[in-house]
Amino acid sequence: MTSAPSDESGPGLADRFSRVRRATVDLTEPLSAEDFVVQSMPDASPAKWHLAHTTWFFETFVLTPHVPSYEVFDEAWGFLFNSYYESVGPRQPRPQRGMLTRPRIDEVREYREVVDEAVLSALASGALDDRKALEVLELGLNHEEQHQELLLTDIQHAFSLNPLRPAYRRGVASPEGAVRTATPWIEHAGGVVGIGHTGREFSFDNERPHHHVYLEPFAMSPYRVTCGEYAEFIADGGYRRPEFWLSDGWAAVREGNWQAPLYWERHGENWMRFSLCGMVPVKPSSPVCHVSYYEADAFARWAGARLPTEAEWEVLARAEPVRGEFAEEGSLVPSVERSPGFFGRAWTWTKSPYVEYPGFRAGPGALGEYNGKFMVNQLVLRGGSCFSPRRHLRTTYRNFFPPWARWQVSGIRLARDTRTG
Amino acid sequence: MTSAPSDESGPGLADRFSRVRRATVDLTEPLSAEDFVVQSMPDASPAKWHLAHTTWFFETFVLTPHVPSYEVFDEAWGFLFNSYYESVGPRQPRPQRGMLTRPRIDEVREYREVVDEAVLSALASGALDDRKALEVLELGLNHEEQHQELLLTDIQHAFSLNPLRPAYRRGVASPEGAVRTATPWIEHAGGVVGIGHTGREFSFDNERPHHHVYLEPFAMSPYRVTCGEYAEFIADGGYRRPEFWLSDGWAAVREGNWQAPLYWERHGENWMRFSLCGMVPVKPSSPVCHVSYYEADAFARWAGARLPTEAEWEVLARAEPVRGEFAEEGSLVPSVERSPGFFGRAWTWTKSPYVEYPGFRAGPGALGEYNGKFMVNQLVLRGGSCFSPRRHLRTTYRNFFPPWARWQVSGIRLARDTRTG
Amino acid sequence: MTSAPSDESGPGLADRFSRVRRATVDLTEPLSAEDFVVQSMPDASPAKWHLAHTTWFFETFVLTPHVPSYEVFDEAWGFLFNSYYESVGPRQPRPQRGMLTRPRIDEVREYREVVDEAVLSALASGALDDRKALEVLELGLNHEEQHQELLLTDIQHAFSLNPLRPAYRRGVASPEGAVRTATPWIEHAGGVVGIGHTGREFSFDNERPHHHVYLEPFAMSPYRVTCGEYAEFIADGGYRRPEFWLSDGWAAVREGNWQAPLYWERHGENWMRFSLCGMVPVKPSSPVCHVSYYEADAFARWAGARLPTEAEWEVLARAEPVRGEFAEEGSLVPSVERSPGFFGRAWTWTKSPYVEYPGFRAGPGALGEYNGKFMVNQLVLRGGSCFSPRRHLRTTYRNFFPPWARWQVSGIRLARDTRTG
Amino acid sequence: MTSAPSDESGPGLADRFSRVRRATVDLTEPLSAEDFVVQSMPDASPAKWHLAHTTWFFETFVLTPHVPSYEVFDEAWGFLFNSYYESVGPRQPRPQRGMLTRPRIDEVREYREVVDEAVLSALASGALDDRKALEVLELGLNHEEQHQELLLTDIQHAFSLNPLRPAYRRGVASPEGAVRTATPWIEHAGGVVGIGHTGREFSFDNERPHHHVYLEPFAMSPYRVTCGEYAEFIADGGYRRPEFWLSDGWAAVREGNWQAPLYWERHGENWMRFSLCGMVPVKPSSPVCHVSYYEADAFARWAGARLPTEAEWEVLARAEPVRGEFAEEGSLVPSVERSPGFFGRAWTWTKSPYVEYPGFRAGPGALGEYNGKFMVNQLVLRGGSCFSPRRHLRTTYRNFFPPWARWQVSGIRLARDTRTG
Repeated sequence: MTSAPSDESGPGLADRFSRVRRATVDLTEPLSAEDFVVQSMPDASPAKWHLAHTTWFFETFVLTPHVPSYEVFDEAWGFLFNSYYESVGPRQPRPQRGMLTRPRIDEVREYREVVDEAVLSALASGALDDRKALEVLELGLNHEEQHQELLLTDIQHAFSLNPLRPAYRRGVASPEGAVRTATPWIEHAGGVVGIGHTGREFSFDNERPHHHVYLEPFAMSPYRVTCGEYAEFIADGGYRRPEFWLSDGWAAVREGNWQAPLYWERHGENWMRFSLCGMVPVKPSSPVCHVSYYEADAFARWAGARLPTEAEWEVLARAEPVRGEFAEEGSLVPSVERSPGFFGRAWTWTKSPYVEYPGFRAGPGALGEYNGKFMVNQLVLRGGSCFSPRRHLRTTYRNFFPPWARWQVSGIRLARDTRTG
Repeated sequence: MTSAPSDESGPGLADRFSRVRRATVDLTEPLSAEDFVVQSMPDASPAKWHLAHTTWFFETFVLTPHVPSYEVFDEAWGFLFNSYYESVGPRQPRPQRGMLTRPRIDEVREYREVVDEAVLSALASGALDDRKALEVLELGLNHEEQHQELLLTDIQHAFSLNPLRPAYRRGVASPEGAVRTATPWIEHAGGVVGIGHTGREFSFDNERPHHHVYLEPFAMSPYRVTCGEYAEFIADGGYRRPEFWLSDGWAAVREGNWQAPLYWERHGENWMRFSLCGMVPVKPSSPVCHVSYYEADAFARWAGARLPTEAEWEVLARAEPVRGEFAEEGSLVPSVERSPGFFGRAWTWTKSPYVEYPGFRAGPGALGEYNGKFMVNQLVLRGGSCFSPRRHLRTTYRNFFPPWARWQVSGIRLARDTRTG
Repeated sequence: MTSAPSDESGPGLADRFSRVRRATVDLTEPLSAEDFVVQSMPDASPAKWHLAHTTWFFETFVLTPHVPSYEVFDEAWGFLFNSYYESVGPRQPRPQRGMLTRPRIDEVREYREVVDEAVLSALASGALDDRKALEVLELGLNHEEQHQELLLTDIQHAFSLNPLRPAYRRGVASPEGAVRTATPWIEHAGGVVGIGHTGREFSFDNERPHHHVYLEPFAMSPYRVTCGEYAEFIADGGYRRPEFWLSDGWAAVREGNWQAPLYWERHGENWMRFSLCGMVPVKPSSPVCHVSYYEADAFARWAGARLPTEAEWEVLARAEPVRGEFAEEGSLVPSVERSPGFFGRAWTWTKSPYVEYPGFRAGPGALGEYNGKFMVNQLVLRGGSCFSPRRHLRTTYRNFFPPWARWQVSGIRLARDTRTG
Repeated sequence: MTSAPSDESGPGLADRFSRVRRATVDLTEPLSAEDFVVQSMPDASPAKWHLAHTTWFFETFVLTPHVPSYEVFDEAWGFLFNSYYESVGPRQPRPQRGMLTRPRIDEVREYREVVDEAVLSALASGALDDRKALEVLELGLNHEEQHQELLLTDIQHAFSLNPLRPAYRRGVASPEGAVRTATPWIEHAGGVVGIGHTGREFSFDNERPHHHVYLEPFAMSPYRVTCGEYAEFIADGGYRRPEFWLSDGWAAVREGNWQAPLYWERHGENWMRFSLCGMVPVKPSSPVCHVSYYEADAFARWAGARLPTEAEWEVLARAEPVRGEFAEEGSLVPSVERSPGFFGRAWTWTKSPYVEYPGFRAGPGALGEYNGKFMVNQLVLRGGSCFSPRRHLRTTYRNFFPPWARWQVSGIRLARDTRTG
């Protein structure tokens, strides 16, 4: 839940609300009606469900409690489009979301319009002018931005299972270009540092409170690991040598018959990859992505390095502005990086399990379920990707997925200990 | 495969072809684009797949071998819409049919139009004027009629998983009306009888050859078991008393937590059932359906009777014309029967495992896979249902499903031994 | 259940009882205490369980109802050693039988002694001198003989999973010897024939009643299919060519990665097989066994033949005495056959689903569960094997297993239609 | 792997070796031969396997590399008794360990004797007098002590699945006695602290290196949570209220139908628990155990507290000697605690995911696989239990299990934040 009110209000907030809501719909422009309904695995959701669930969020947590005159669009839909808020009532089982051919996509679009209009009109009338209401509205917008990224990763996964390999759309061309220069790793002397969110701007509850951690001296690569580097790992037998792998990772390799990142296919001598632009060549200088934590960890061990912790990442990343290849660029595949950077292109796995920060307090009620209850069996990723809305990211932002997950735009950054002893 | 050529040819056949093909499309009229794509279980198929697969059949087995000028609509689609013809090449895994959001439904409709036009034009030009081509065309039409029934049962199953319980369409009203009169069971003295198809009209290969079987004396009910009778079985603890059940059936009851036929729900004191018309009351005098073989067998044991064999059914049914409540009636739920009858309304399980008749020979090539390779682990059903096209049925017609299957319009008819010993 | 009383009584019956009971214990002589407890798959049972369950049968169905003074050995054991008699009460879940390290094997042996003594003393005192008691005792002895064969097949399966490949014991040597002579297939003109058990001697309920069936003309091989013939099928791509297989069979081949009969392993150019004598060479002239129905059916199709029905088998087999290689020979692998024969060596799959005979009636009470409730999803095997006690077999004897089962001594005999027409 | 050589050598080490090895065998004294073979779930191992695997460890890592004259007892056993050392070669699949009825327990005992004699004779002859050999020997002894605890927890689990509920042996009586006094929670001011192992004594590699962490101020209970307190959680609907649970934990509750700790059963008004002493009453003042991390975490949330981190636990625990109820006491159930304490009785879950310490380095070769490759998807437990050998524990000792694991003697200790602000 938000720990601070939004600074925006009135017209500024209404404008931002409209822009975020429209951006979600814009993402679905290339989809056929059939594309909206498919659920390719229990962890993914249909595009239609993303559209409806984000709307249900505003209806349930903004309109219903704060706008007495608002009438729920359809009582039955609460069951369908609640994701995991146990306190709000029962819900459609997650693996059954793909059964929802009804309501139709045009009905869901109407739902969005009705709710949008009600929110905008409530904003205009001042009905949401209390700190609590604005906080939840801001949370709803950030929640919607998360689902924008998930909508893309879920569509990519669904399309990948269709032998026709459909393209979502043509990506913005990104030339392979000059190889990046050899930049030395960034050094940090260690000691007590502070991490986590401060200030009045929005953050998720899991980024707070700001607190101290002790770091040993370390160094970190200014770049993400590239596809070319990863291909060397593969060529060196990376997927056949248990010595590089965590025990659970090795089990995943064998069960899933993993031989390369998700979506990679060998075509003769070359690697191709399925993407939202269809099958495209793997560019050696672009950041590797669609790897699991297990693969990231094994690659690091093979490379004689390790993954960074999230605190290490954060203390280095905050020296930089939040700038990089985000969704707004329209590149549907992480493109070649020509200069160092911590943000955008591809999330990078950290070696930090996703746990609460010392002093963490989940909010009351249903929204308190937002982040805290997922704090086990997952690892933190940092930095955002070329699927993330630019405005959504922050230096303190914590993304998290289970170690076997590969369908996100998840890549690798290396670190190492530098304590001499 | 067909064992005999069709009697129709030229204009008559073209007309029949057009009517059958149109009937399939007509069935999908109430569906939204999203409804076409969903696959609710591995045993069911999406409506779009039914439309495309039946078309692929004509393209692959009629046009390609017999019309040299025909160009395949899209080479890639063969992989998608082949069902189980191993000899024709690899195919989309059955449980993954629901991933096919592309080709879109309008593309599939275009596919149908192109193939239909090519077939009609080949018929007109005489290009199909050989016995073999006409046989395959006739087989394709019968195949299409089978998929018309499956399309309906699959849609009903998919809709049943949607908590909104959408209705496919309103059924034709069928009043509960007067209870049927007490008619004595039909007696048969037994002895050597002949069953199976004879003559030159079309039949599937599994209905041939005509052959002899020896029957002990038996009697059979002129009616199907009603919902009211089945409700008594339930009320008597039928689903809690192992003594009525086959061992595998009892396991299915416990694993599936079966407490009534599929789609039945208790609402207070009453039974309701989900149907293509949405939730409707269970009518006590209408035939029970959506029961598995296990349930049919257990009911029969509870009732002190047994299920008939398929031979017993056939020797009695052939005294009657093939007349009853078929798809053309528009009743989407079997309606009350006021007079005895063997055809339509609801298929009835026989106790006969689905095996080949003595002397059975599967045809050569891919079409030889049509029926023979499913002759294990299934039971024969007879008589057709209110979802079956009228013209599709014959006295010798053998339908077959595994003993646990419940999503077909499958009901019960009782028989008993009358040998006094 | 038995349909007829045993002819034996008094001393003769006591003697037979002692011999059968001792034979079971003798079979376990080569086993270590640990061997008694293991359950290698849900369909198999531990040797200790076989010893105890057969004893529980006599205690529950003979002693408790007929010997008022008998006190149950241990009330708690009923739960452990009941197999599937739902009417007798709850029971240890089948897949959990391997958890029963207690009672110890010496306690189970004591259980057997106590029950044996009680039965013998009841026999001597005349307490069992009524038709019903003697019938159940006879049934118990036949039940025990069934478990003797299962005990061996289950131990073989358990040992096969141990990489040490232990031998149960050395088999009686059986030289490869001269190849059998080319004997013509046996012809039968068809027509109405009677099958099933008649007379007052013991039979299982599933062998009755005697009844008529109509057969088309057929021919049957006087020999079982040999390992050499089966190896040709393998060499001809039998396990890679779907055209020979039932659809469910082909699925089993792919899921189980079947490439040969169970227990066969390729060692360089040769086939070896795991047996109760450890790893031994496959003898080309000995009958193939440890094949599923799916494999038997596919082999027959490859060979241009088919499997016989059980009625066809029975009408030919009854021309012969029940003579062949049974358990008493001590050969733990079916040996080369030098003359035609229907009995012993290896069961042969028929193409007949296991169903009740016309007029079948299961007995009342728990013993009525003996056979009838398994009459679905299984196929009939005929003839007995080198693991079957000689006295246990009859011409009308029906064994049955699901089509995927391979751990029994199950082989193949071919037939074909001879109607010209 | 060990990071430091043992201080013991020569006679002292030989003596310790003999004592540890004998202690393992002594633990199996109450077992029947059958008890040795059973594997109750994939995560558990048969007692015989524990005996053989620990012996294989000495044979493989001590004798083979350091005693040239040693001949491997049986080459085939390496495959059977390797646990997870991928570098050493293939191995029996973990879930199949229960199939190993052979080698027999007497053969495994002989194996132990042969290896023990060889090690003792090597020690006496000075063949192991190099730092590396002694390190591995010391590691082998600590490894054996771990398996002593696992042997007991695995036997308890296996016996729990036997409806006879056998007792392993009678426990030492431990009276319920006086309730503990109300002792205030221990406060800690936070700041930078050092944790991890220092010095030359043995530790596992995962306890090193000593390093700094920053702690916020916190308080911790001096006692473990009792069964009485846990029963209040249950009575308050703890297992029915999702608000207390992590999302994965709530899924585990529903899938496993958890309603109490593992082994607890309600008998009328009272709770009983299965233990190595058979069914015994739950003593309200004794520490709760056999709870998963999910349950520990939910209990803490219900109690308005949280679990401690492992660093918090370690900085408080090191103020105390390693003293408590360990295996040597012979109490087979954690007994009532009358005074505060951090060690023995029941392990307590920490909220710390099991990860490597900063600067961690796994050793080279197969032994480097000992700990590091399990550092994902597990949580740290601290303090030891009444099943742990006393000598095995240290303040820095880290045990680890997945969050769903319940068959260990795993309990709960509460902590809370005390930062005001």
